Amino acid sequence: MGRIDGRKNDQLRPVKITRHYIKHAEGSVLIEVGDTKVICTASIEDKVPPFLKGSGEGWITCEYNMLPRATQVRKPRDISRLKIDGRTMEIQRLIGRALRSAVDLKAIGEKTIWIDCDVIQADGGTRTSSITGAFVALVDAVNKLHRHTPFEVYPVRSFVSAVSVGIIKDTKVLDLCYLEDSTAKVDMNIVMTDEGEYIEVQGTGEESPFSRKDLDELLVLGEKGTKHMIQIQKDALKTDCLWIGTGAGK
Amino acid sequence: MGRIDGRKNDQLRPVKITRHYIKHAEGSVLIEVGDTKVICTASIEDKVPPFLKGSGEGWITCEYNMLPRATQVRKPRDISRLKIDGRTMEIQRLIGRALRSAVDLKAIGEKTIWIDCDVIQADGGTRTSSITGAFVALVDAVNKLHRHTPFEVYPVRSFVSAVSVGIIKDTKVLDLCYLEDSTAKVDMNIVMTDEGEYIEVQGTGEESPFSRKDLDELLVLGEKGTKHMIQIQKDALKTDCLWIGTGAGK
Amino acid sequence: MGRIDGRKNDQLRPVKITRHYIKHAEGSVLIEVGDTKVICTASIEDKVPPFLKGSGEGWITCEYNMLPRATQVRKPRDISRLKIDGRTMEIQRLIGRALRSAVDLKAIGEKTIWIDCDVIQADGGTRTSSITGAFVALVDAVNKLHRHTPFEVYPVRSFVSAVSVGIIKDTKVLDLCYLEDSTAKVDMNIVMTDEGEYIEVQGTGEESPFSRKDLDELLVLGEKGTKHMIQIQKDALKTDCLWIGTGAGK
Amino acid sequence: MGRIDGRKNDQLRPVKITRHYIKHAEGSVLIEVGDTKVICTASIEDKVPPFLKGSGEGWITCEYNMLPRATQVRKPRDISRLKIDGRTMEIQRLIGRALRSAVDLKAIGEKTIWIDCDVIQADGGTRTSSITGAFVALVDAVNKLHRHTPFEVYPVRSFVSAVSVGIIKDTKVLDLCYLEDSTAKVDMNIVMTDEGEYIEVQGTGEESPFSRKDLDELLVLGEKGTKHMIQIQKDALKTDCLWIGTGAGK
Amino acid sequence: MGRIDGRKNDQLRPVKITRHYIKHAEGSVLIEVGDTKVICTASIEDKVPPFLKGSGEGWITCEYNMLPRATQVRKPRDISRLKIDGRTMEIQRLIGRALRSAVDLKAIGEKTIWIDCDVIQADGGTRTSSITGAFVALVDAVNKLHRHTPFEVYPVRSFVSAVSVGIIKDTKVLDLCYLEDSTAKVDMNIVMTDEGEYIEVQGTGEESPFSRKDLDELLVLGEKGTKHMIQIQKDALKTDCLWIGTGAGK
Amino acid sequence: MGRIDGRKNDQLRPVKITRHYIKHAEGSVLIEVGDTKVICTASIEDKVPPFLKGSGEGWITCEYNMLPRATQVRKPRDISRLKIDGRTMEIQRLIGRALRSAVDLKAIGEKTIWIDCDVIQADGGTRTSSITGAFVALVDAVNKLHRHTPFEVYPVRSFVSAVSVGIIKDTKVLDLCYLEDSTAKVDMNIVMTDEGEYIEVQGTGEESPFSRKDLDELLVLGEKGTKHMIQIQKDALKTDCLWIGTGAGK
Repeated sequence: MGRIDGRKNDQLRPVKITRHYIKHAEGSVLIEVGDTKVICTASIEDKVPPFLKGSGEGWITCEYNMLPRATQVRKPRDISRLKIDGRTMEIQRLIGRALRSAVDLKAIGEKTIWIDCDVIQADGGTRTSSITGAFVALVDAVNKLHRHTPFEVYPVRSFVSAVSVGIIKDTKVLDLCYLEDSTAKVDMNIVMTDEGEYIEVQGTGEESPFSRKDLDELLVLGEKGTKHMIQIQKDALKTDCLWIGTGAGK
Repeated sequence: MGRIDGRKNDQLRPVKITRHYIKHAEGSVLIEVGDTKVICTASIEDKVPPFLKGSGEGWITCEYNMLPRATQVRKPRDISRLKIDGRTMEIQRLIGRALRSAVDLKAIGEKTIWIDCDVIQADGGTRTSSITGAFVALVDAVNKLHRHTPFEVYPVRSFVSAVSVGIIKDTKVLDLCYLEDSTAKVDMNIVMTDEGEYIEVQGTGEESPFSRKDLDELLVLGEKGTKHMIQIQKDALKTDCLWIGTGAGK
Repeated sequence: MGRIDGRKNDQLRPVKITRHYIKHAEGSVLIEVGDTKVICTASIEDKVPPFLKGSGEGWITCEYNMLPRATQVRKPRDISRLKIDGRTMEIQRLIGRALRSAVDLKAIGEKTIWIDCDVIQADGGTRTSSITGAFVALVDAVNKLHRHTPFEVYPVRSFVSAVSVGIIKDTKVLDLCYLEDSTAKVDMNIVMTDEGEYIEVQGTGEESPFSRKDLDELLVLGEKGTKHMIQIQKDALKTDCLWIGTGAGK
Repeated sequence: MGRIDGRKNDQLRPVKITRHYIKHAEGSVLIEVGDTKVICTASIEDKVPPFLKGSGEGWITCEYNMLPRATQVRKPRDISRLKIDGRTMEIQRLIGRALRSAVDLKAIGEKTIWIDCDVIQADGGTRTSSITGAFVALVDAVNKLHRHTPFEVYPVRSFVSAVSVGIIKDTKVLDLCYLEDSTAKVDMNIVMTDEGEYIEVQGTGEESPFSRKDLDELLVLGEKGTKHMIQIQKDALKTDCLWIGTGAGK
Repeated sequence: MGRIDGRKNDQLRPVKITRHYIKHAEGSVLIEVGDTKVICTASIEDKVPPFLKGSGEGWITCEYNMLPRATQVRKPRDISRLKIDGRTMEIQRLIGRALRSAVDLKAIGEKTIWIDCDVIQADGGTRTSSITGAFVALVDAVNKLHRHTPFEVYPVRSFVSAVSVGIIKDTKVLDLCYLEDSTAKVDMNIVMTDEGEYIEVQGTGEESPFSRKDLDELLVLGEKGTKHMIQIQKDALKTDCLWIGTGAGK
Repeated sequence: MGRIDGRKNDQLRPVKITRHYIKHAEGSVLIEVGDTKVICTASIEDKVPPFLKGSGEGWITCEYNMLPRATQVRKPRDISRLKIDGRTMEIQRLIGRALRSAVDLKAIGEKTIWIDCDVIQADGGTRTSSITGAFVALVDAVNKLHRHTPFEVYPVRSFVSAVSVGIIKDTKVLDLCYLEDSTAKVDMNIVMTDEGEYIEVQGTGEESPFSRKDLDELLVLGEKGTKHMIQIQKDALKTDCLWIGTGAGK
């Protein structure tokens, strides 16, 4: 029995990355993964959080948000409840960690790169799409700095992309849309570099626990998916990018 | 001496209205006025605020927001300061009033229409563009209800659009972009119906007061601009709209 | 058919301005317009907001508030809801803009003048009464500074007062009390200088739109009202004021 | 060596109670104790907090606030810090307790009486003045209910008034003004009934501890002060009050 | 008729003070008074609040909190309501005042001592137990500073302990447990030094007022209780404490 | 080269679980893992969140918190910043998910079990210790319900425990203390059942990415650690527990 939208189990939805989407931002991307659409911007600020002052190191931080009507049912804005919800917190921390792991923060110097991921339409996989899109916006912002005053060491160390994988009934599938996600027993997000290494692995069996064998199969599917995503990032960046990743030849 | 972008004093920037922009919302529009871009959605909720319970009347309310990087310099999110800023409050109240004035709230029955205006790129005139775009999203949402269960009286009473006008040095101009706006002595927002009547007039001479003659000239310019905007709304809605406004033949 | 309280259509309610009402403030006024009573204070602070640091310019900002029982039904305090309501925001921004427009902020130097308008009893027209009263408190505070260390240029450039006008049924009236206000189709606030120029014009036809002719008639009524108000301000200030306005002879 | 303002050690400042000060409130008072001025209102609400629903009992609760410029230096509003400060909390809890202790909450039935004490000018003793003034507003509100639908048992059981006493250097004094208060070693607030019993005794020796003998002398002074205050309350209420206290003949 | 737990009217519950309870804090204590258990820590910070900057003086401030399940019914955390409740505010202000009164803030220099009192199990008397326990933690923190760099003047001036007393029916009792507290007509907290002087006296007759005779008897009971508590503090501190109080020989 | 505290790489710190630690809670545990100490309580509430009303299903939710001085440097309380920090959010969501996965929420019926994990002393592994301790508190609370009114199906489906694993330099180690954690390149939390299945796997290579081989070795270490932890849970529960897990015989 096939998937809702006729995809193969190891097939991504159509992915489209539009660079330079917002004119004011140093880097900005609209990423579309199926019906999931996220505006990702990267903004440079010439200061760092207090814990890094004087360290010579930079910082990358992320804010993630959904427009109220990105979802089936209108979701009230955080400000109307005076609270960021836990899911949002969890996601923006994940995106921040993922991007920091790919960048040499010393090479950047005392700057903060603010990543904003605003989901304008949600259909599953918003956090992984955000990582994939935000990475491209980040590279554009770094390139803008680099063109102005070249870094001694180019600060991006590897490509980073992310996909979701999961188990629906007994089938392992890649890149779940919302309808699939809501029926999955196990849900996993995988963030990898272009050298095939893991940056983050998060698997949850809230509906039911999963075996080591399940885990292994999901990891294989995730590796396949992130590889494909990195190829799409590279295609998007190839026109005028200063750097093409360390894992290019592998 | 001409305008920054070569426009005539009474000329709007290019306007583009894309309907059905967000798949989940009952009505949704991307409006682009020059480089100003706003996503406007209209969402139907089957209840009303406490002060209308049992009244048989409906309500329209608006939330306005800018993405952090819609602006030249990144603007922190409201939630990070735990406060909606005053400008945002003022704008969302204006949009709500403007749209309510065009709709027969009794005809809607006990429903709330939530209007969300999220500015993804700002270049002046975000509040007037929001009104113009949100009106189209509102009509689409009303039509969706109407197709499902026809209203006895079609609830939208007139078209509503808005433009900004202002005085730069001694010249009166229509539809100010950000650079113009920041040097204007007098700034005015005008909201009108397709019958040529005023819904809201807000003129401010913070830099210097203005005479009755100035006011009269600005009103003429504003009337011209809103008429043009209403034509653009009608063009956008003509394909499948159930209603074409009361002022059509005038 | 006459007005609720027997006034003529172009007649203000009785206005009383009591100066030096609060002993600690640099300027303070109790303004009574009919049953509307507002305590307005002007406080001098020797610093400016961040965006003006080092500019040599001063700033004027306003906070507006109602005591919980200023109204028919007790209104919960902002702090109990952790939010300033939108109406309050809109009003305090209006008052701030109106007063700043009348003052040469360069002449003041790097000082902030805090205007506090606390409504202790509300019966319509609280925002316009606040502007009219706060202007007098502001002049007293400026005079206090001037007596201590004379300014090179006296910083107040013109008198500023405000009135509301509106349309009830088909009648245009000046200075609406609460009962009138709640039945008005069109509601307008007008802020003018003693030179007969506009600082702010805000007209709203939430109940129904209004024509250019309506607007013109309201503007005439508003001009008459603000002129009268400025006379009352001048009478209040005449005992010991250092300055009597630019429009005195007109 | 005498007191700053020439008073005797056991002498109150001039006290003035103006009833029916705010037209909308069920009970309202302006109390002036020297330069301390507080607007006290009592508002009736036809419901009780959740913990009393169905109990047949009523509730009295208090909110205390200072206008920003009631004090020498402008004090930012609570809402601008999103926090009620601890002192305010402490005071409003004290006022609430004091008034509840004088009222038969069963006799009131399931109603809440909201007491609002807004200090418009502060010169020491704002919390005790608030209790003394709020009691009178409370009686007026209860009388209004009583005239409409007589209670079976008149719900007010005793008069309640409050004064501050303190030790300055080695002198015990009654009713400290701000300047005295700021130099006092020991500060005490005493709330008593017209039957000469204590409702609340709060003494603090933050600057230095105090002996039992000091405490005894302060209690005597406090008793004298509250007796005087109750006489002033009775004078204020005598014109049209339905009830004159239990301790009248004592 | 005796007490619930068989104690004499002037008898404390078993008290146990465990020092060095939390390894990271400069001073830390678990105090158990019957079933009431409070973790008290004292933390040294090398700066003072703005109002003391440059004064050469130190500060002591307290935060009091209950774990959600310290009580019979789970109490939601402050953060989930975005408000500290009034009772908590009142208590932490009391603890701060009590401890500051016993310390020479000049002798400490520009440091802040943060006192945290976290109630892990509540059975009445949490505020008085917090004072008694926090004093011991404070002494340990001061000693730690003193051992590192001896103060010229040892900054603690006197021992401080606190007990509750109250009237249940007509019986005056010492150290009320929760069940007693909830039926008491009069409730009083007494904070005293080892020299037998008062630091704070707070008596409330919310249920019914109390006479001078009642007050006197409660004060006697309170004095007895605080003396006993101070003995327990001295026993706890005797092993390695640098200072044994001024009232030792009395 | 060995570990800081002399442990073997696959060795847990000493673990101690004290049941019935807080008398008011339905279930309560003090868990000590080395110097990490967490009070875990489970509280039963007879209602469910809105999204489950009428569903017949129960809910488990968690709040995690650190006492301010649980850490080396005092950490301000959430309420003083009006925000829960992201780390706390992430942790409490993890604990909630982990426990829900082990319980048949339908069997519980429409009740909420509130899990509170309050860290009183932190030395690494607070989130995994919280899961391990909270599970025991949860079982005690479920047993209390079961003894009162036996469930048809015993709602706990499997034991759940958690450990951290990580890579320090090139060595994989189990159960990192704070000092180890702060130097680890890769950090992973593993939550498993007594049947050897995964509930949650979270691995982060913020410092540097990790290979599939690294991941596999960490998973083996984690499985060993959770098995040991489950044995400790079973020992703690053996005295009077109604249920001993499904994986007992494996």
